[in-house]
Amino acid sequence: MRDRARLRPPAAASIGDRLEDVGSPALLVDLDAFDHNLAQMQALADAGGVALRPHAKAHKSVAIAKRQLAAGAVGICCQKLSEAYPFAAAGIPGIHISNELVGADKLAMAVELARHVDLSLCVDDVRQVRAMAAAAQAGGVRITVLPEVDVGHGRCGVNSTDALTRLADAIGKAPSLRFGGLQAYHGGAQHVPVWVQRRQAAQRAAEVVGGYVRHLGARGIPCPVVTGGGTGTAEFDSQSGVYTEIQPGTYLFLDGHYGASEWLGRFQPRHSLFLSATVMSTARPGVVVCDAGLKSVAVDSGLPRLWSRDSSGWLRYVAANDEHGVFEVLNGDSQEWLGNKLMLVPGHCDPTANLHAQYVCFRAGHVVDLWEIEARGLSR
Amino acid sequence: MRDRARLRPPAAASIGDRLEDVGSPALLVDLDAFDHNLAQMQALADAGGVALRPHAKAHKSVAIAKRQLAAGAVGICCQKLSEAYPFAAAGIPGIHISNELVGADKLAMAVELARHVDLSLCVDDVRQVRAMAAAAQAGGVRITVLPEVDVGHGRCGVNSTDALTRLADAIGKAPSLRFGGLQAYHGGAQHVPVWVQRRQAAQRAAEVVGGYVRHLGARGIPCPVVTGGGTGTAEFDSQSGVYTEIQPGTYLFLDGHYGASEWLGRFQPRHSLFLSATVMSTARPGVVVCDAGLKSVAVDSGLPRLWSRDSSGWLRYVAANDEHGVFEVLNGDSQEWLGNKLMLVPGHCDPTANLHAQYVCFRAGHVVDLWEIEARGLSR
Repeated sequence: MRDRARLRPPAAASIGDRLEDVGSPALLVDLDAFDHNLAQMQALADAGGVALRPHAKAHKSVAIAKRQLAAGAVGICCQKLSEAYPFAAAGIPGIHISNELVGADKLAMAVELARHVDLSLCVDDVRQVRAMAAAAQAGGVRITVLPEVDVGHGRCGVNSTDALTRLADAIGKAPSLRFGGLQAYHGGAQHVPVWVQRRQAAQRAAEVVGGYVRHLGARGIPCPVVTGGGTGTAEFDSQSGVYTEIQPGTYLFLDGHYGASEWLGRFQPRHSLFLSATVMSTARPGVVVCDAGLKSVAVDSGLPRLWSRDSSGWLRYVAANDEHGVFEVLNGDSQEWLGNKLMLVPGHCDPTANLHAQYVCFRAGHVVDLWEIEARGLSR
Repeated sequence: MRDRARLRPPAAASIGDRLEDVGSPALLVDLDAFDHNLAQMQALADAGGVALRPHAKAHKSVAIAKRQLAAGAVGICCQKLSEAYPFAAAGIPGIHISNELVGADKLAMAVELARHVDLSLCVDDVRQVRAMAAAAQAGGVRITVLPEVDVGHGRCGVNSTDALTRLADAIGKAPSLRFGGLQAYHGGAQHVPVWVQRRQAAQRAAEVVGGYVRHLGARGIPCPVVTGGGTGTAEFDSQSGVYTEIQPGTYLFLDGHYGASEWLGRFQPRHSLFLSATVMSTARPGVVVCDAGLKSVAVDSGLPRLWSRDSSGWLRYVAANDEHGVFEVLNGDSQEWLGNKLMLVPGHCDPTANLHAQYVCFRAGHVVDLWEIEARGLSR
């Protein structure tokens, strides 16, 4: 009985394993492609003279954040306060929460984190400023605050110079807060598939945020940081002359959704994130079923697709059930697929990484590293 | 620095907290509704003279499985082998894996689990039977195997008496395997919204599986167990005279998808699973944004909806981003919503539970228990 109480699922992989022997479903990272993406985005930021503050919401892994900092990143972004904890605990020095935070539970986390890291966060309402100022003062910390401006995404962020002025003034009057600049992220622009149209969307966003920067400048309020931009627009934002910092996340992995976009400029990302899957049923003619469904791969931005350089016997992923992925067999005998190990490209990397506890990293067909996903599930 | 290394996100709730003080996003369970659902499904199984073997893939929690067994369940189902480990470790005596299993990693897990629990699993191909027989023999265990028959779902499972006969014969010849009966689950039938049509779909499935049972009986092969059925069809399956065991999972929680179905019979489930959320931005007129997006609630079967007995100032959840939920404000001043705590009904409970580490259980407006979700993310 004591043996039984110690039962734990075996690891999906060990260092040295052959790629084809990794269990499934498991998240795989092709380190050659990963290193290419890591270096190319840092070079892009360096060439534009902007800081790179990668978004850790994409990977949620301390091992990856440390590699980003070693390559030249100035810190990281998180989207949630709870998400920031494992990075703070691991010694990441600067964390920007690119999001508004409301409620006693959030204020308490912000104050605790601010005791240990260089913390900044966003506001788009004077009530948030007042609550954060009071919490920071009571907690004996000073927190850097960036108003978020809506530059076209239409979700959070103020939409007028008046509202921005009120925020900046409220921050300026609070001794426990520090005005940090502007948060200006255009989520919609990231996913414009046609490269010239994406460049136009990024340019329009830069014009909008530039107007806000000039407005504050005319009132004697400089913006030390103008931060925003994602994987889709980083090459434009870094050259905009307006942004001082870019926040891409997916650039390391390139998921199916971003992979379907045009990449005509200097950023040429490669797919580095995959999901292992095994065909476990071929009972129905013309169909094969694998063990990777929507509990192991996010389907909000499209179904996963088969990754293979060999086009024979091609399969198309047509339906995700909870724990099953259903493929249409485009040619060949479906029964021959039983037991085949597949590599899938997830449609959306961020919520897919959130489903897993570990990255299985490989080079040249062998497992060379295992990275924990410490912030998996930390959404508060 | 040592303090910093020990940083951990605070708990979303403590026992005794008021419901409105629970952090967000967090999974909430209304224990009155939960107990109602738990008792009503057991009563349904008892009235039909069938065993209840609830599907733990819906909740992934040992605390819940123990309550199901205490109420009369004969064991549990899991969908994956890794998912079964925390239940096996916690002493759950019987676990049926309602799924086909292919590959060395899966065979090793099956053999290990079979050393500790009464394990059964499914096959729909003679090659699976051979591989499992060899692995069980090498591991010195005997495993109960149930052929899966396709009763209308069109995913896994054999489709002919010939194929079923080959499977039963192959199992019968393997000393390390034991023929356990039939797995017959009609996933599609669960989600037929109109009650009389759902009853018809369940009756058709029962006729199909009844035919397979008679076919095997005529060959001298009794089926000790005929297992299947879910929340949608349990009331029909339990009365079918064919099924000996039902496998519902969602019945405890009743998500938005099932909640939209008609329930005209003796099973009258109540919503017991909710997600807490906080409105953190009202900058855009007519829109409010909360902190619960697709990293904390699954959206594959519909968006979450606001749960409230008070219809004033109603909101409609219209878009899920990674960490944001966007609501349209149907009436009233959107700015008044800032900081409001919301209770949402998830569209699909199984993949939503898979995103969280804990259930926050409440009665009469206060937190009374915290249940771990030990099998969260265990999809191998």
